[in-house]
Amino acid sequence: MLRFEFHNPTRIIFGKGRLAEAGAWIEGLSRKVLLVIGRGSIKRHGIFDIVMDSIKAHEIRVEVLEGVQSNPILSKVEEGIEIVRREGLDLVAALGGGSVMDTAKAIAAGALLEGGSVWDFFSGKQQITQALPVVAIPTLAASGSEMNGYMVITNEKTGHKLAAGSPHLYPAISILDPETTFSVPGDYTAYGGVDAICHLLEPYFNGPYPYTPVQDRLAEGLIKTIMETTQGAIESPRDYDSRASMMWAATLALCGLTKAGVGDHFFPVHVIEHAVSALFGVPHGAGLAALLPGWMKWRAGKEAGKIAQFGARVFELGKTVNAPSAINAFTGWLRRIGCPASLSELGISKKDHQRIADNASRQVTVWNMDPPYSRENILKILSLSQ
Amino acid sequence: MLRFEFHNPTRIIFGKGRLAEAGAWIEGLSRKVLLVIGRGSIKRHGIFDIVMDSIKAHEIRVEVLEGVQSNPILSKVEEGIEIVRREGLDLVAALGGGSVMDTAKAIAAGALLEGGSVWDFFSGKQQITQALPVVAIPTLAASGSEMNGYMVITNEKTGHKLAAGSPHLYPAISILDPETTFSVPGDYTAYGGVDAICHLLEPYFNGPYPYTPVQDRLAEGLIKTIMETTQGAIESPRDYDSRASMMWAATLALCGLTKAGVGDHFFPVHVIEHAVSALFGVPHGAGLAALLPGWMKWRAGKEAGKIAQFGARVFELGKTVNAPSAINAFTGWLRRIGCPASLSELGISKKDHQRIADNASRQVTVWNMDPPYSRENILKILSLSQ
Repeated sequence: MLRFEFHNPTRIIFGKGRLAEAGAWIEGLSRKVLLVIGRGSIKRHGIFDIVMDSIKAHEIRVEVLEGVQSNPILSKVEEGIEIVRREGLDLVAALGGGSVMDTAKAIAAGALLEGGSVWDFFSGKQQITQALPVVAIPTLAASGSEMNGYMVITNEKTGHKLAAGSPHLYPAISILDPETTFSVPGDYTAYGGVDAICHLLEPYFNGPYPYTPVQDRLAEGLIKTIMETTQGAIESPRDYDSRASMMWAATLALCGLTKAGVGDHFFPVHVIEHAVSALFGVPHGAGLAALLPGWMKWRAGKEAGKIAQFGARVFELGKTVNAPSAINAFTGWLRRIGCPASLSELGISKKDHQRIADNASRQVTVWNMDPPYSRENILKILSLSQ
Repeated sequence: MLRFEFHNPTRIIFGKGRLAEAGAWIEGLSRKVLLVIGRGSIKRHGIFDIVMDSIKAHEIRVEVLEGVQSNPILSKVEEGIEIVRREGLDLVAALGGGSVMDTAKAIAAGALLEGGSVWDFFSGKQQITQALPVVAIPTLAASGSEMNGYMVITNEKTGHKLAAGSPHLYPAISILDPETTFSVPGDYTAYGGVDAICHLLEPYFNGPYPYTPVQDRLAEGLIKTIMETTQGAIESPRDYDSRASMMWAATLALCGLTKAGVGDHFFPVHVIEHAVSALFGVPHGAGLAALLPGWMKWRAGKEAGKIAQFGARVFELGKTVNAPSAINAFTGWLRRIGCPASLSELGISKKDHQRIADNASRQVTVWNMDPPYSRENILKILSLSQ
């Protein structure tokens, strides 16, 4: 276990019916709010009305930024920053999935920027030194954005999808009402589960220090829970127990706990997937599912023991477990929940690998990931994922 | 899983050599500090000098309150409050185990009290509405006080040992340097491990809701880690890996994470043990070890399935596991690390049960624990623990 600092200041408000408390919680922080939402599904399912009614009941002024798409784009962030500045708003609330929360965070940081562009935070040109408070109301169990200081935005002009982070980006409050996820269809429920599991597996397989039993067991416990509840939620979309435990496990998966103490680890599967979804427009979780088995095969060269531990503890494969059988078990689970487990299942072919590697290299540079994630090694991972 | 609010604002600074950073971290919060310590062992092992040198190097004014004993007493808290007020100090730092940290918290809350006695917080007469900031530097992996808002103090005049809690009592910063625990002897290392495991087992076996997979698996993972690392630390007291993982697991064991969402659960073993240690002066962890198997036998009447799950997942007892075999496995582990596993091993006999139940009833009332923890049921638990 290596040295670390851990500080997660987000206040979590969890449970049935919490959605209707949104106004009460926001009122403690602000009276002039930008509410960021996606492209309509929350309106169809009544979620939007519950939150708006609650905000208005507390006589909070609210402007709405609508139309955030998955793989959220820079121009929408800039649109939000303009509204915040023009209207003198002082809090950004997000009602939606990871794209909506990340857009809200980028607006919150960008609105206070003096000089330069909000994209500078992603390209590494500027550090985030302040941000408006954010209140997150996730409607999908997946990104963990509701309890961390990260965001991912796509610059649609350059075709780059990049991540940025800051302690200033932790939501002040996140309201987790599992019933908001009842209407998420099976495929996106599966993609969300894979995203959360990927957040756990990357530090788990990448950490440089050999003895991290706290972090390993927390990650393994969350992975088992997410596997079990993702399947439960796909089979019974309105099963509160599955939706609730999946939501809380996905939140904890990227709250910093399972990474603290494992040392430098990177998120290489996410980085490569950001290139895949930026170029091919596939859902983020589907791209991760297509890449994870190939990446694990590549990691098995150095971390066969850890991959076997994963197979033994998560899939209970018994004493004959080894890295290949663990990877097979995981691939089998991906297929059982209807996910692709290779790039070819996404319609991506070997001739696309160079473009993906080119695109990923930008983020590799920003995060100082080479070595070990050289262009050559990324091509090897893509080849093993084909 | 039931509704909850979770907010843990403590900043954790973890790792080798962190002790020498104490002054730098305190400086960001205060320049006039009360440093609370125990009765000498940290001076013998050089820990005190490292912290004092660091505080003085940052030109912070420091007064020292020395002599906190295990099962810390009210008069020492009052002594600290008087120094803080007389000297105009504005931060309370704790360097020691749970007793020292809890004394520091009580001073931090009591110093700002206008009217009444600090004991009112424990007897339930007053709520804590503010406190000076606390910096905790634990030297024992046990209480978890370094990352929660609880404290336990003994009123030596009445013989009551009571707990109190408030969001204002979370340490602002906790500095966890595993090397500070190298000098903890084997018996106290074992008691610390039992204390941390007890913090996990009480919500685990007491929660009213049947499906809490996130909380269960986090607790099971931490328990396995604490069992493994407690044994490792007893065998090799200077093994950094064991000490570090034990320290972090014990901190997480009572940081609120494994309790959030399980519903009302109480800490009955702690409440009964507080009576035992108040009356018989036994170390807290030894008292818990003596009571845990008996309490689990009593709980088996209602929670046989959960106790079997504990045996299956933590002790890997296989498919023939049941509640008695799980309790036996746990009792065996207590004995392997040199702990008592019954009251008679502490020299306590059946004729003492009435006094223990009388003493415990005070805290049962404060925490509204009857039902199910009636006097009659406490006597049953004591009988099963004899």
